[in-house]
Amino acid sequence: MGWWSKDVHSMNDLFVHALRDIYYAENQILKALPDMVDKATDPLLKQGFEKHLHETEGQVKRLEEVFRLYDAEIQGVDCPAIDGILEEADTTVGDADNKDVMDSALIFSAQAVEHYEITRYGSLIAWAKLLGKPECARLLEQNLAEEVATDKALSQIAESGVNQRAAA
Amino acid sequence: MGWWSKDVHSMNDLFVHALRDIYYAENQILKALPDMVDKATDPLLKQGFEKHLHETEGQVKRLEEVFRLYDAEIQGVDCPAIDGILEEADTTVGDADNKDVMDSALIFSAQAVEHYEITRYGSLIAWAKLLGKPECARLLEQNLAEEVATDKALSQIAESGVNQRAAA
Repeated sequence: MGWWSKDVHSMNDLFVHALRDIYYAENQILKALPDMVDKATDPLLKQGFEKHLHETEGQVKRLEEVFRLYDAEIQGVDCPAIDGILEEADTTVGDADNKDVMDSALIFSAQAVEHYEITRYGSLIAWAKLLGKPECARLLEQNLAEEVATDKALSQIAESGVNQRAAA
Repeated sequence: MGWWSKDVHSMNDLFVHALRDIYYAENQILKALPDMVDKATDPLLKQGFEKHLHETEGQVKRLEEVFRLYDAEIQGVDCPAIDGILEEADTTVGDADNKDVMDSALIFSAQAVEHYEITRYGSLIAWAKLLGKPECARLLEQNLAEEVATDKALSQIAESGVNQRAAA
């Protein structure tokens, strides 16, 4: 990959590259979510994934606004982290034949995606503030709040009966 | 990869596979941390990575105890998620030439690793309890507590001056 080595010599470069990394990641998640909606059998889980699909569309638009406010070209960069996380998630979506265990595995996979986004937005928000771009930080904070809420909702769905059915 | 498709038909299978996934991940992190110690220039960050290297050795031992208590063979399985996260981290460790930005990038990378572990331990603990293995859950909770503390410590180090120097 090595993109850091070529371009990143300042906090400004770090911010723009991390923004392109999460922009790529959100777009990959947008492609993965419809399959997760289809595969979920628990009604709350299916609803949760549908809601998050719509949120993710809005998050991509917010990221594009951050690029504009920062005066940086809107583009993604390869992100082996999210590719690896989604590769693991994809195996749960495509192959399992026990619906209850599948729902637990979907939550397990989706929470790894959420935590990746939570940590990346945390760094981006801290950097945007230091770089004197509070308007960028505010948009990124909206995305972060949605990821945190999604992670909590997934835990609640897991505890509402999904895991118990899978363990039965 | 497709390991889910071959073996995972119950919560028990899911637990054992997730345990092997995090066991592989912790061992990969153990290999990656000495480079992060070497590359860190901020004294608090270097100390933090050294501390976490020792903690990770203890975490691997705790996982081996969980395998024994669960009566499952101690082994890892490929984990494309941690491989991808560490692939991204590795580029920051090997290539950047600005020490201050490098420290910020190291924290950025290490927090992605911590969040991956936090979400995996969260699922494993919930499943261990449902599977009637509170003694496994207690060991996993000790690992989780260390990961959460490490993530917080990294945020504090970033805010203590590392990010400000990188943005200067």
